[in-house]
Order: sequence, then structure tokens, then C-alpha cells
Amino acid sequence: MIFKQMTIIGVGLIGGSLGLIAKQKKLVGKVVGYGRRRGPLQKASSLGAIDCYFLTLSKAIREADLVVLATPVGLFEQICQLIGPFLKEGAVVTDVGSVKGGLVECLESALPSHAFFVGGHPIAGREKSGVMAATASLFQGNRFILTPTSKTNQSALKKVATLWKKTGARVSEMDPFDHDQVLGVVSHLPHLAAYALMETLTHPKVAKRDPVQYSAGGLRDYTRIAGSSADMWRDIFIQNREAMIEVIDLYQETIEKIKKKIIRGDGPGLTEIFERAKEIRRKATR
Amino acid sequence: MIFKQMTIIGVGLIGGSLGLIAKQKKLVGKVVGYGRRRGPLQKASSLGAIDCYFLTLSKAIREADLVVLATPVGLFEQICQLIGPFLKEGAVVTDVGSVKGGLVECLESALPSHAFFVGGHPIAGREKSGVMAATASLFQGNRFILTPTSKTNQSALKKVATLWKKTGARVSEMDPFDHDQVLGVVSHLPHLAAYALMETLTHPKVAKRDPVQYSAGGLRDYTRIAGSSADMWRDIFIQNREAMIEVIDLYQETIEKIKKKIIRGDGPGLTEIFERAKEIRRKATR
Repeated sequence: MIFKQMTIIGVGLIGGSLGLIAKQKKLVGKVVGYGRRRGPLQKASSLGAIDCYFLTLSKAIREADLVVLATPVGLFEQICQLIGPFLKEGAVVTDVGSVKGGLVECLESALPSHAFFVGGHPIAGREKSGVMAATASLFQGNRFILTPTSKTNQSALKKVATLWKKTGARVSEMDPFDHDQVLGVVSHLPHLAAYALMETLTHPKVAKRDPVQYSAGGLRDYTRIAGSSADMWRDIFIQNREAMIEVIDLYQETIEKIKKKIIRGDGPGLTEIFERAKEIRRKATR
Repeated sequence: MIFKQMTIIGVGLIGGSLGLIAKQKKLVGKVVGYGRRRGPLQKASSLGAIDCYFLTLSKAIREADLVVLATPVGLFEQICQLIGPFLKEGAVVTDVGSVKGGLVECLESALPSHAFFVGGHPIAGREKSGVMAATASLFQGNRFILTPTSKTNQSALKKVATLWKKTGARVSEMDPFDHDQVLGVVSHLPHLAAYALMETLTHPKVAKRDPVQYSAGGLRDYTRIAGSSADMWRDIFIQNREAMIEVIDLYQETIEKIKKKIIRGDGPGLTEIFERAKEIRRKATR
């Protein structure tokens, strides 16, 4: 047993999956859930993802020696400010957010000095969201990135690492700002590109022909990407603003480069790009 | 039996699948294959996609009353010029290319007056290419678009339509230029967006961190899209230049719009876009 009580704030896909595996493998003594609405918490409880739940934040975390932030990232700062005064001496607060960087510093300062923050990010997801999509095997074989800073308590870091290793995740460490740049390009940019494509289909110039009825495989893969939780992605885009803008600009630059090759009818130039894409494909799917 | 002899020029995924279903359902008397290399034709023959093959174009089409162009679209014009003098009186030439528009006019003029051109496009594909990926069920339930012009011979059009209906495809007609705009947005643009994303990952600023090892579901969907035949897409991008440029510009405009919302931290504005994307998802997957 790594922690006596783990309180999960936001019992959705990730929070629920963590609860399921933690209870299944007895990684913690007790799993408490917090949420704003009773419905999803009742579902989480009947699925076996939590032992009990509270609708009052201070009650939910009062006995916790581990608090896991698993709401959309935009709420993390406010939650840390609210729970701070009620946290046990030595409580560890961690998160599962897709944005780190400046947010980690911000959460570190939002917590009182008797609690320890450890930033973390399980790289796992499904096109479905919500606790009904949760599964104990979600983290198995997937990466989990810890983002310690100079302020991170080493004992808290080790305990959080142990918890995630036991879920089956491959745990590694990264600088919080490096994390945001890497995830910005392999995860946030792909989602932005998919949402932009969907939005292009709604442009009046395009939509008047109702093109979607002629779609095949390619578009279906995009709609899958664009099918994830809207609240989650809104917060990720805004919180990871700086890294996002940088990769969006690179993406626009690349599109412009390809467009010029199309205009010039530069076949070999296009082939070169397609071959490089296949190389990435080999790397990404291995 | 709709045609006595069908000659397929380019026996890959689409050509091979057409051969398989045509032989299985006895839609034509004989299926002849043409290609530049013996290897793939031997495979096509052993898979039952063709009855026999030739490595000489004039020999392959001499007895054909239907010729199907199934190479990358960039070769269509040259092939029509080469086969013209050897075509039987009343032979029908059709294609399976993803680009129509001006190309249809061009192929109509490239053929002699004793042969009839009918433009067609089966909206079917797989991430795999080549005859080994061919399957008799490839067209089942998928759309097939005929793109007749004022010059199209009505009897030839009907016979080609009948052939494709018998493959299980849902056959409809569209103006060749409308076709290019519609496919430009639902198929060609998604592929361009995926190739541009892959190419962005190779940018020195990004590649130095080897981000691909941290990729999850989102990127995998893109690599699938970017996994199709490079030669085919090179030709499509260049041949559908005009419609492509138009939708690329709309796409870039949309990315810029989303970027501005991110910069401003406009959460409700982003949510609106995500909700519209879900609407498209519902339409595309129904």
C-alpha cells in the first residue's frame, strides 16, 4: 500500500481508470472521489473505481495523503487554492494534466508549505471520455511522465512514481517546459489540426456542397481525433498557449512549403516529404 | 456480362479489387492486366484478379471493349495518347482516378473519336496499397462517382454505371469540377494536413527532442492517413492543384482563427469550434 487514502478530483476517464487499477491492485488503502455532480460519482462507485465520494471538496481531501487532480487543467489552480487550508500535514498533491511548464510552478506556489506537489502526465487516452470509458488497463505499457522541479520533494516524487509504475505505465522524468513542447507537437498540434479541418468543412464556401457525405477513411480518422472531450482540449490549448503558438507557426510554415510545391508541380519535392512521413510512421507505430 | 474484355492498366489496390469482383461475379468475359513490372502482375494473376497480363500496352488493350485506367492519375494522359491508335472501334475507356475536372476534358481529347471516355471515381481506399491489399469487397457500400460531360457517350456511361453497381458501389453522378472541389476538401485536404503534420515533426526545432517516442493515439491516426501510396498522392495533389490551393487557403485561414482564440484565451470561442466538429463527426460516421 503506497498511500492510505487517495482522493481523485474529477472521476472521468483518467481519474476513473486510476481508481480502478489502484483498487484492483490494492495500491492504496481507500479511494475517495470528488465531483460537482452526483451522477458520475455514483457510476464511478458502482463500477468499482472509488470506495466513496463527496460533493464537498474540503471533506473529500481532508483525510487524503494523496490528492490527484484529474479535472480539465484549467481548474487546477483554483482547486489547489481551495484545498490548501484543509490538506493533511505531508499530503502529496499530484495531477494527470496534459500541460505542465508554468502551470507546475503555479500549483507549487498555490499549495501551503506542508503539502508537496508532484507534476505527472499519463500519456493515455481514448476517443471516449467520462468514467464509463474507464478501464483498469488504460495505463498498461503507456508512458507516464513525471515533471519534477528544483522544489519537488524527493520522497513524494518516489511514492508517486511507484504508484504509476504499479499501474503498468512506463515512468520517466522530463523538465516541465520540455514536456509542453514535446506534447505540444505530438498531441496538442494533431488535435488542433483535426479541429481546424472539421471547422474548414463548416466554412460556407465548402459546406454548401455538403461534402461530408462523400467522405471516406481519411476523414473518419480525423473525426476520431476530434471526438475527445471539448472541455479538456479547450483548457489544454489555452494553458499550453506558448508552446502551441510555436508549433502552430511551424505547421503553417510547413503547409505553405507543401502548397508551393503543389503550385510549382514539384513531384519529386512532394515525394520526398511523403517518404519522410513514412519514416515517422515506422517510428510512431513500432 | 457487361463487357467481353476488360483491360486494367495498373493492377494495384483499386485495379486488383475491380478485377477480383468482376471475375467473381462474371461481370466481364475476360480480365487482362497491364503493368510495367512482371512481379505484381504475376501476383495479381495468382490472386485471381486477372486472367492474363501483358507488359506491352498496345497488346494489352487491342481486344478490350473496356479499358480501366488505374495507375496514379499523372500517367492517364500519356496512356490515352499511347493506346489511342490501338483501341477497338467503340471501345470504352474509363478511369478510377481521384481527380476529374480539367483532366476529364484532357482525356476526352487525347482519345480518338472511335473510342468513348467515361470518368469515374470509386471512393474507397485502404492504408495499404498494391494488389496484395486488393479485395473483392472493397467497393461494397461505398460511393462511386461518375463525372459525365456534354461529350460523354450515353450508352458507354450506362454500361460503366452498371459495372460499378454490380461491384456493390452506390453509383451517382457529379460535374467533374464539382467533384474536385468536394474531394479536395473531404479527401485531399485531410491527406495534405496529415503529411504536413508528419513533416512538421521532422523540423529541426522539433526533431531534436525525438518527440515521436511520446506519441499516443492522436498521432497514430495521422500516421495511418499518411501511410497511403506516395506516388498516388503526389499526382493527386498536382493534378487537383486549383481546388487544392483553394481549400489549403481556407484551412490556413481556419488555423489562424483558432490560433487567435488561443492567444486571447477565448475558451467559449474554442468550445464552439469543438462542438461544430462533433456535429461533423456525427454526419461523417453515420
